[in-house]
Amino acid sequence: MRQITVCFTPTQFPHYQHEGCNAVVIDILRATTSICTAFMNGAKEVIPISTVDELKTYINTKYLIAAERDGVQLDFADLGNSPHYFTRDVVEGKSIAYSTTNGTHTIQLAAQRHITAIGAFINISALCRWLEAGEHDVFLLCAGWKGRFNLEDSVFAGAVAQKLIDTGKFTTICDSALAAMDLWSLAKPDLMGYIRKAAHNERLRKINAADAIPYCLDMDRTDIVPIYQNGVLKVF
Amino acid sequence: MRQITVCFTPTQFPHYQHEGCNAVVIDILRATTSICTAFMNGAKEVIPISTVDELKTYINTKYLIAAERDGVQLDFADLGNSPHYFTRDVVEGKSIAYSTTNGTHTIQLAAQRHITAIGAFINISALCRWLEAGEHDVFLLCAGWKGRFNLEDSVFAGAVAQKLIDTGKFTTICDSALAAMDLWSLAKPDLMGYIRKAAHNERLRKINAADAIPYCLDMDRTDIVPIYQNGVLKVF
Repeated sequence: MRQITVCFTPTQFPHYQHEGCNAVVIDILRATTSICTAFMNGAKEVIPISTVDELKTYINTKYLIAAERDGVQLDFADLGNSPHYFTRDVVEGKSIAYSTTNGTHTIQLAAQRHITAIGAFINISALCRWLEAGEHDVFLLCAGWKGRFNLEDSVFAGAVAQKLIDTGKFTTICDSALAAMDLWSLAKPDLMGYIRKAAHNERLRKINAADAIPYCLDMDRTDIVPIYQNGVLKVF
Repeated sequence: MRQITVCFTPTQFPHYQHEGCNAVVIDILRATTSICTAFMNGAKEVIPISTVDELKTYINTKYLIAAERDGVQLDFADLGNSPHYFTRDVVEGKSIAYSTTNGTHTIQLAAQRHITAIGAFINISALCRWLEAGEHDVFLLCAGWKGRFNLEDSVFAGAVAQKLIDTGKFTTICDSALAAMDLWSLAKPDLMGYIRKAAHNERLRKINAADAIPYCLDMDRTDIVPIYQNGVLKVF
């Protein structure tokens, strides 16, 4: 049986010794949902970039620049971090340099040790098929919010873990995975209502939750699974 | 309304800006349960010590030395980390120098910013009365396991958060607190069974779970709430 591990925040990542897993980076509101949307609408590649300074080197190049900090689009960026920006007429055939508060750094962290994919509710079934077809243990890494736990990423990790265990090919001895599956069991009957519990939170107000949440919680809009290779996210 | 915040691991602690709360350090298996037991059985004071080197300076002094790493008693220690060591005939009137894998470092971390108490199921009601009587926000800090999330500390944090919210004097906008309360709602009907879900985990085998769990999950054996002040835990 293959093992599933869940890590709730990038700050905990150094405390996991795992290597060589199939990893999934999760930043439901909104980076990983937006990346999946970009590929769904024909983007050629996405380069995750951690720092604003590095991102600025992409100004006046062929790259579209997508960037936010604390939920607000940076002034030199072509696009913000809402999936609604990544429409077909904007992104088709384009390369995108992409930086967000939590998501892009987390992708680079995971990719140092694992084969790393991008997960969101909008590609959850395709993602689980990719994980099932692989021959590796699974490591689910939540981006969280500024080093802290968040509900929507954790609930998604629970949904993926439960789907994998239901195949009969996976198990877990990880407390975070057990907790995440329990949270998913509570959230599943009314996912929107569950995530809206946190909607009075400053964090969700900042990212304009009313606009982004319904789309970001919608399942299986695409079969695309973006994979990180040599510094670039692509669909293979 | 006063705010409740939950932090699942010491590694996340630097990412919370809170100061001046009434904080609770939680290491159910077994440090905080053992510390409460020590005071219940008449210990005079407990000095939490992070490093083995510092602990060695207490050899051949008036202090009892209690110490474990990875669940195993250190060879120069008088006592291990199971609450069963801290009987009245051993600890009454004594000062104890105490160091464990996760718990003691976490106490020192919390105490840098907050009025810090020790919480465990065995003193949960007294702890909640102390928190309710205070005039501060509440910060619940789980010791976790080597930088990682664990179920028993998180479920306990959820139990405390729920009790405080039920008084009508507290609220929360913290995702970790919401998740912890949800986990507690699932665990509450059969706490032992819930925590035993993780019993095949290497971690729980290491700490001899079969021996320690039933006592550590038993509620309200004592009304004592140990408080940290000037480097020492005492009952005031």
